[in-house]
Amino acid sequence: MPTNWLLPENIADVLPSEARKIEELRRRMLDLFRTYGYELVMPPMLEYLESLLTGTGHDLDLRTFKLVDQLSGRTMGLRADITPQVARIDAHLLNRAGVTRLCYAGNVLHTRPAGFRATRELIQVGTEIYGHAGLEADLEIQELMLAALAAAGIDNVRLDLCHAGVLEALMEQATSLRGAEEAVFAALESKDLPELRDLPAALDTPLREAFLALPTLYGDVSVIARARRALPANPAIQRALDDLEALARQLQGAEINVDLADLRGYHYHSGVMFAAYVPGLPNAVARGGRYDKVGEAFGRARPATGFSLDLREVAAISPVEVRAHAIRAPWETDPTLRDAIAALRAKGEIVIQALPGHPGDQDEFACDRQLVRVNGVWQVEPCSQGA
Amino acid sequence: MPTNWLLPENIADVLPSEARKIEELRRRMLDLFRTYGYELVMPPMLEYLESLLTGTGHDLDLRTFKLVDQLSGRTMGLRADITPQVARIDAHLLNRAGVTRLCYAGNVLHTRPAGFRATRELIQVGTEIYGHAGLEADLEIQELMLAALAAAGIDNVRLDLCHAGVLEALMEQATSLRGAEEAVFAALESKDLPELRDLPAALDTPLREAFLALPTLYGDVSVIARARRALPANPAIQRALDDLEALARQLQGAEINVDLADLRGYHYHSGVMFAAYVPGLPNAVARGGRYDKVGEAFGRARPATGFSLDLREVAAISPVEVRAHAIRAPWETDPTLRDAIAALRAKGEIVIQALPGHPGDQDEFACDRQLVRVNGVWQVEPCSQGA
Repeated sequence: MPTNWLLPENIADVLPSEARKIEELRRRMLDLFRTYGYELVMPPMLEYLESLLTGTGHDLDLRTFKLVDQLSGRTMGLRADITPQVARIDAHLLNRAGVTRLCYAGNVLHTRPAGFRATRELIQVGTEIYGHAGLEADLEIQELMLAALAAAGIDNVRLDLCHAGVLEALMEQATSLRGAEEAVFAALESKDLPELRDLPAALDTPLREAFLALPTLYGDVSVIARARRALPANPAIQRALDDLEALARQLQGAEINVDLADLRGYHYHSGVMFAAYVPGLPNAVARGGRYDKVGEAFGRARPATGFSLDLREVAAISPVEVRAHAIRAPWETDPTLRDAIAALRAKGEIVIQALPGHPGDQDEFACDRQLVRVNGVWQVEPCSQGA
Repeated sequence: MPTNWLLPENIADVLPSEARKIEELRRRMLDLFRTYGYELVMPPMLEYLESLLTGTGHDLDLRTFKLVDQLSGRTMGLRADITPQVARIDAHLLNRAGVTRLCYAGNVLHTRPAGFRATRELIQVGTEIYGHAGLEADLEIQELMLAALAAAGIDNVRLDLCHAGVLEALMEQATSLRGAEEAVFAALESKDLPELRDLPAALDTPLREAFLALPTLYGDVSVIARARRALPANPAIQRALDDLEALARQLQGAEINVDLADLRGYHYHSGVMFAAYVPGLPNAVARGGRYDKVGEAFGRARPATGFSLDLREVAAISPVEVRAHAIRAPWETDPTLRDAIAALRAKGEIVIQALPGHPGDQDEFACDRQLVRVNGVWQVEPCSQGA
């Protein structure tokens, strides 16, 4: 028995009905982005490793497949994230002074799956705005993320807001934690309070209490007021909380939550961060935030914010229906048949010609009509029973 | 100066106007395939190497990037051709008894470019029919290839026909050439007559003359009649020539040529092969043919024929225009502005909101109208001069 048709773990073919649904959602999203004035770009699947990993964290490095370029002998990476590529395009290829809005849809690959059942091949779809540091850009991106999910028929979304500036300001004050940043992140991410209580004794009490409070600063917008009391009166922290308050007030179309310890992507984010959740799924279906530092790493500092999602995951929960009706036609050399079929297809009808010896059998398409000759003229008629 | 924005050789970003054109042609082609009843599939970018290379030749092996799967420790390949993947899907996943029509559009990567200016990252688009050995399937695929090119505005196409059965029959008769197959292919492919004249003296004269005639059997359909005289009266050869004659008679929409020494892809093809040429380009813009052997290699023999093209190359020569007109809108918190913008976007209009402090500057979209408030009502008006 040949086994050469077996695929690697966490890698799968996308079969017809799912593929068509992904294609349909891809178009709806790219068309939506276009109506907002976002220009489509297509960065390559492969780049030199140092370009792919510029300005990003260690996580992305571990998730990136490496291979050798036969032409240069250098190491290339197979992209695991499109966002840094789009930042590179904004910084160096387009090189515009003003606001640039870009969008993309493409495959990314991960060396290891994010979870037991997660795929290692995602279809990342997203949008980015460069050149505007104000909250208006964050707001537009968040609105667009909700609209993209709505275009997939997903409208019962909860939006969680976070701000990288809060932890950044705390870490800056906590000089005694220098060198222990990774351990602190890990404890905060897993909301591990015992671990946080073991923070160096040198930490003064208000700061220690602030770190311990972070994992509890989770819930509806009233969390912002609680955070103002629980966290130090540091101007950077207050500004971050002001930003979250302003966004929560202006955003429409979703239940708003605040989660000040949601640190996924913290290493490359620099301001407002957000994530969209739907009932029944533990992980976010879409995420985004500011990453003003990434462009800087390419030699050109540009404010930047964006969001992305995995289209395969969104398609799996989308209620959009794509099954299509089709017309069955016989195979004959009659030129009038050829013309009749061409005219129907030009109108967008699906016409499936039964090849000689094979009665119609197409799984994806429901053949509910047939092309038959009536008094020498080809006509579309309902399928006779049992056909 | 950072140089981390430099890309590897023969790898490029696709910037907005080109990206949009590719997207437009991708949709036109996939929609066209759908009207013929072809179901979309999306095979993965990565597979175990032996799956990717099953039933294919040495060329594909050299063109395939290899990397190690961290989960299994086995070698995976980054696909360099989607056709064998689709054959695997037909053979093992769908596993239908009757005719199956499949189509696809996706990235493929090559370790080395096909030529000095060729890209190593192609967007392969194509269709396949499984389960029908008759010429009707070849005809449908060829018609669809011409229709796909026409959908991209390319209609001055020359179609070259070839048949793998001709060389196969000659090689079978030429027992003294066993072991020298590769040298013979190379000489035929480059139409190297001196090299062909050096064929072993053991070869009997009619067979030697047949090999020498092959590179000259090139031109309009009259070549078929010439071939009947120049090649041995072997039944397999005569059947192959009958097939070519029948196709040439029935095909419409292109100038038909015959080229009996066009052997590209010979190693996996098994019957009629064809290629589409346009004026001014030396290489074919689309190619296809029968490859009944590939499914067999996956443990399930199925007749198969298909075609594919590189969408980036087709987009580069396509006259299709994609530049769009847009409406410029101000950024205000007025909810009636929000509603006016949403209504325009829902109708498919592109509305670009100028972020505060940034007058409109979108390169891809021509802003020819603007949204202005007239007596408290938002209205679309032509742009004032100089705006």
